[in-house]
Amino acid sequence: MSLLVVGSIAFDSIQTPFDKVENALGGSSTYISLAASYFTSPIHLVGVVGEDFSNEHIQMLEEHNIDLEGLQIIPGGKTFRWGGKYHYDLNVRDTLFTELNVFENFNPEIPPKSRKASYVMLGNIQPDLQLHVLGQLENPKFVVTDTMNLWIETAHEDLLKVLRKTDVLIINDSEARLLTNEPNLIKAAGEIQKLGPKYLIIKKGEHGALLFGVDSIFSAPAYPLEDINDPTGAGDSFAGGFIGYLHSTRDLEFENLKRAVIYGSALASFAVEKFGTKGIEDLTKLQIHDRFIEFRELSRFDEK
Amino acid sequence: MSLLVVGSIAFDSIQTPFDKVENALGGSSTYISLAASYFTSPIHLVGVVGEDFSNEHIQMLEEHNIDLEGLQIIPGGKTFRWGGKYHYDLNVRDTLFTELNVFENFNPEIPPKSRKASYVMLGNIQPDLQLHVLGQLENPKFVVTDTMNLWIETAHEDLLKVLRKTDVLIINDSEARLLTNEPNLIKAAGEIQKLGPKYLIIKKGEHGALLFGVDSIFSAPAYPLEDINDPTGAGDSFAGGFIGYLHSTRDLEFENLKRAVIYGSALASFAVEKFGTKGIEDLTKLQIHDRFIEFRELSRFDEK
Repeated sequence: MSLLVVGSIAFDSIQTPFDKVENALGGSSTYISLAASYFTSPIHLVGVVGEDFSNEHIQMLEEHNIDLEGLQIIPGGKTFRWGGKYHYDLNVRDTLFTELNVFENFNPEIPPKSRKASYVMLGNIQPDLQLHVLGQLENPKFVVTDTMNLWIETAHEDLLKVLRKTDVLIINDSEARLLTNEPNLIKAAGEIQKLGPKYLIIKKGEHGALLFGVDSIFSAPAYPLEDINDPTGAGDSFAGGFIGYLHSTRDLEFENLKRAVIYGSALASFAVEKFGTKGIEDLTKLQIHDRFIEFRELSRFDEK
Repeated sequence: MSLLVVGSIAFDSIQTPFDKVENALGGSSTYISLAASYFTSPIHLVGVVGEDFSNEHIQMLEEHNIDLEGLQIIPGGKTFRWGGKYHYDLNVRDTLFTELNVFENFNPEIPPKSRKASYVMLGNIQPDLQLHVLGQLENPKFVVTDTMNLWIETAHEDLLKVLRKTDVLIINDSEARLLTNEPNLIKAAGEIQKLGPKYLIIKKGEHGALLFGVDSIFSAPAYPLEDINDPTGAGDSFAGGFIGYLHSTRDLEFENLKRAVIYGSALASFAVEKFGTKGIEDLTKLQIHDRFIEFRELSRFDEK
């Protein structure tokens, strides 16, 4: 009943109007695994890096009980690098450069002991690689999938195949509209659920997130942050907190999925407070619980 | 302890990709008064119309216990007319025409008996007219103000004067950013509260609304509507439900303001289901209460 996480590992160079950082640890599987590590262990990470991936990073991940047997280290290779610049309105960003390096030929091989994984988080990678991951698993019970506008537009057929095997799809509002060509988010959600996922989460950034179940909708607020230092990785931290909490509780009822959405939102709110993965490297369970309670206070109201 | 509502009264011609209507009853004070009428009475409406305003409309408003002593009917005049067209994405609209007619020289005169009003809703009109209204009142206890981007840009000084006399400002997210030149909504809210209003409500359309108190924030969800027929008047219906509920309860504690935001959101959700004011002309208290409960279900989650 272990948790498998597959996705990118990267060094990110990030500029905001307030600060900048070079070669900060990033990538979808990194954020997801770290965020999930506060709820459950071990987490089996599958990804690829180059020789430039430091022992310090490996040690930090291992201290979070992240099993790195599935981490491919390519001799002589360079780790994926991404550079981005956020504007004064942090909702807008430009990609400055993308160096795929070893990620270009990433072929996710699941180590034998990880093939029994029952909970699977497919981070945002090409849909055919996501399918390749699922094909290696013995009996995945609960598959959570992330994707992006690029795959919606360029790998639509493969993405549809992934969706048919997906229990929870996590995407943002513009991706939901793009996938369905439907501006009304509630209608778009219904269309997406017909494609396979029993549950759908639509992330709306500063406006929170929506969880769609069979006949139920849950609206989660966003944590009101005055100082966002780096929005990178917010979505992956959300996904990690979400699946980590679910894996720890083994409860897939809608009421528990709502809690998982709040824990995901909490981890995302910590992630954006610092550059790179720094915001989710040194949390305590008490800090996370306190933020859960803050989310409840933020949205709670009673009848008179 | 009566409730005074000042604003526009209009005939709206509205096109959407699905339907259209000509000369539907509209205007801010109309929506506000109707929405408030489900919670409290009498409501003193102050506005201006032309001779073309029908007895049928007057009768409908009076049936909602709306006191029309402050309604100026200009002999030989024509009522304000507005035409707009919504796109397939209903968040986007174009104004097709604006005929101010009698509204151009609107000078809100408050009838003597209404000058004792303790609760005042200043609908979206020029800030100098809002000041003129406040100047006629004996002892307003609770002033709720709406405004728009036009006045933020062209009547800034007058608007600042209104804000100093305002208890609750209700604006949308783009107006909050415009007023403060600050993209982060939480920071923008703090800036606006320094200008006078003890409370601030930021409406975010399909993303719900935020209520800012002294040291508290409340995040209200949006009602998940698949079929929005006409977004016109949603904000005014929100304001009417908000102040109507508060006036009926005479309770200005933050916990009660949260309930008022939900009742406002409920009235807005009814308003957009039909063209013009039709969606809020024939509601029952039970329908409104049921929707309040639906809002609670939508956002409720518990600790395990």
